[in-house]
Amino acid sequence: MISPVFYNSDATKALNSLIEQKTKVFVLVDETTHSLCWPKLAELLNDAESVEIIEIPSGEENKQLSIFSQVIETLCEMGADKKSLLINLGGGMITDMGGYVASAYMRGIEYINIPTTLLAMVDAAHGGKTGVDLGVYKNLVGAMYPSMGVLVYADFLDTLEPSEYASGYAEALKHGLISNASLWDKLKNEIVPANKISALLPEIIQVKLDIVTADPSEKNVRKTLNLGHNVGHAIESYFLSQEKPIPHGYAVVLGMVYENVMASNMGVLPKNEAEEVNKYLLELYPNLPDIQDGIEVVLKNLEKDKKNEKGILYFSPLSKIGTCEYHIAFDKKECEKVLVPIS
Amino acid sequence: MISPVFYNSDATKALNSLIEQKTKVFVLVDETTHSLCWPKLAELLNDAESVEIIEIPSGEENKQLSIFSQVIETLCEMGADKKSLLINLGGGMITDMGGYVASAYMRGIEYINIPTTLLAMVDAAHGGKTGVDLGVYKNLVGAMYPSMGVLVYADFLDTLEPSEYASGYAEALKHGLISNASLWDKLKNEIVPANKISALLPEIIQVKLDIVTADPSEKNVRKTLNLGHNVGHAIESYFLSQEKPIPHGYAVVLGMVYENVMASNMGVLPKNEAEEVNKYLLELYPNLPDIQDGIEVVLKNLEKDKKNEKGILYFSPLSKIGTCEYHIAFDKKECEKVLVPIS
Repeated sequence: MISPVFYNSDATKALNSLIEQKTKVFVLVDETTHSLCWPKLAELLNDAESVEIIEIPSGEENKQLSIFSQVIETLCEMGADKKSLLINLGGGMITDMGGYVASAYMRGIEYINIPTTLLAMVDAAHGGKTGVDLGVYKNLVGAMYPSMGVLVYADFLDTLEPSEYASGYAEALKHGLISNASLWDKLKNEIVPANKISALLPEIIQVKLDIVTADPSEKNVRKTLNLGHNVGHAIESYFLSQEKPIPHGYAVVLGMVYENVMASNMGVLPKNEAEEVNKYLLELYPNLPDIQDGIEVVLKNLEKDKKNEKGILYFSPLSKIGTCEYHIAFDKKECEKVLVPIS
Repeated sequence: MISPVFYNSDATKALNSLIEQKTKVFVLVDETTHSLCWPKLAELLNDAESVEIIEIPSGEENKQLSIFSQVIETLCEMGADKKSLLINLGGGMITDMGGYVASAYMRGIEYINIPTTLLAMVDAAHGGKTGVDLGVYKNLVGAMYPSMGVLVYADFLDTLEPSEYASGYAEALKHGLISNASLWDKLKNEIVPANKISALLPEIIQVKLDIVTADPSEKNVRKTLNLGHNVGHAIESYFLSQEKPIPHGYAVVLGMVYENVMASNMGVLPKNEAEEVNKYLLELYPNLPDIQDGIEVVLKNLEKDKKNEKGILYFSPLSKIGTCEYHIAFDKKECEKVLVPIS
């Protein structure tokens, strides 16, 4: 499940070399990455003219099976064969969607990810998880299907809106919290800006690579990457169902904050550490969306989580900063108690 | 990619034992297998009452991504989790569809195949290829995703229409032709009836298992299983696009007949062997559909074949009875020449 990661000029070398071996090359973009990122990538390619572009609408709300179907059909109409290459140029929506398209087209073609958001660079583009949403259920349809490589160009971070950058930053914080306390210390005081994060990217990404290498099929330690994601996904689905989608990372921050309180109430995480982590998180993210009107829906969504078994809900709570547990059962009522508006 | 095969009482033991380990069990059926096969299967289960049935409409024309999406949604609504089991009870349409559903639901749950047609028993249910059609393009969307086991009950063959039985018989003939001349001799004189085929099933199935074991990812010898399927798929797609679907096996017989003539014209297969094989095939299948009006569409469909690379068409022709070549390029014009009405 581990795809190699290449940075900057190494990435460009790897890319041009892979393209040479392929019958046809397709680049999946959304409206945003088409206009902001494709021109930069095209400059790096030996033969950008021969590449076919497939554009889909931007936004998590378009990570749907219906769009997946359209991309497959477009590939077919454009003459993609089993030895074609798909390049996913975009954020997590594009890498999730494109990875799943690659897994499925003619039962699988090779693909590479070129993440353009911080979220995709540090998280979504790695680890082989691909998939699309079905209605409000996130990643309900998908495959474990690793890419041929992940190419990281920190330059693309300049194309991001501040909220999108902050969204990805949440996953970087999570990486520190679950397994690298010194990384957390480097990240917790401010949202480290794009021009400074470049030097930290390898360390942030390595957390994910190490965990996925240790447990590719998510039987144990890989579950720790789900910190904040049980409650977070349920919150994200709620806002999506209201047609007011929120950035994934904001949902994850909310998820981490609530899960930390739950973990503290359950005696898994010392109260002072929960409070400390939440203090930093809420200082970094002062304008999180209010979930007050959605609490019932959020609780209902929790029951549809992929991480449940036999109706029992499991989460991956911190036990201290830098260490995360997994497969810890929790009571929906415990969650209900902590889902109060954030002051 | 090799799933174990169990027959009759061994199958029932394996089934009940696997079900015990699962959180929930779902059976995917079509209208036909729901009424004709499910009651037989239910009698074999220790706890049939706890099993949930998911029914989809019968027919290859329903092996579509839209139905796939509905099945995924139904599983979600019925509370399927990562440790649920899907049992595919039906012909190749159900095992292809259900296998792909299992591959995709929450990025993969376990499933078993219980083929109820001869075609699925000897071919479709084995080897881990799953998928659905996109419009007229067969299996354009799919995954390599092996089942936990294939359970073979020859009794289900009593539920088949003669044409459906004859359709599956074509794949059994193909197994003999590509790698077991003595099996071909046992099968070529008459369509061996259901009450006598049971004794031959293990030998027929073993051909496929041996080939898939030798080459799970279809890099070389597995391609021989495509005998008759290049031209055959193109013919099948043509009739599907005319909304006059024909049994898959009839398309494969037509495909084998035309591909044998092509192979003979190209000097790959001796002329006398091509004539001998085609004589038997046409005696066994005296009422094959007429492709005269569809020749242009068939030729166009050939270009969309998954087995093509860089626009070059490849097929897997016999070189003698019991031996099949693969990855042999052919000219569309060669094919056009041989696509004449069968006398």
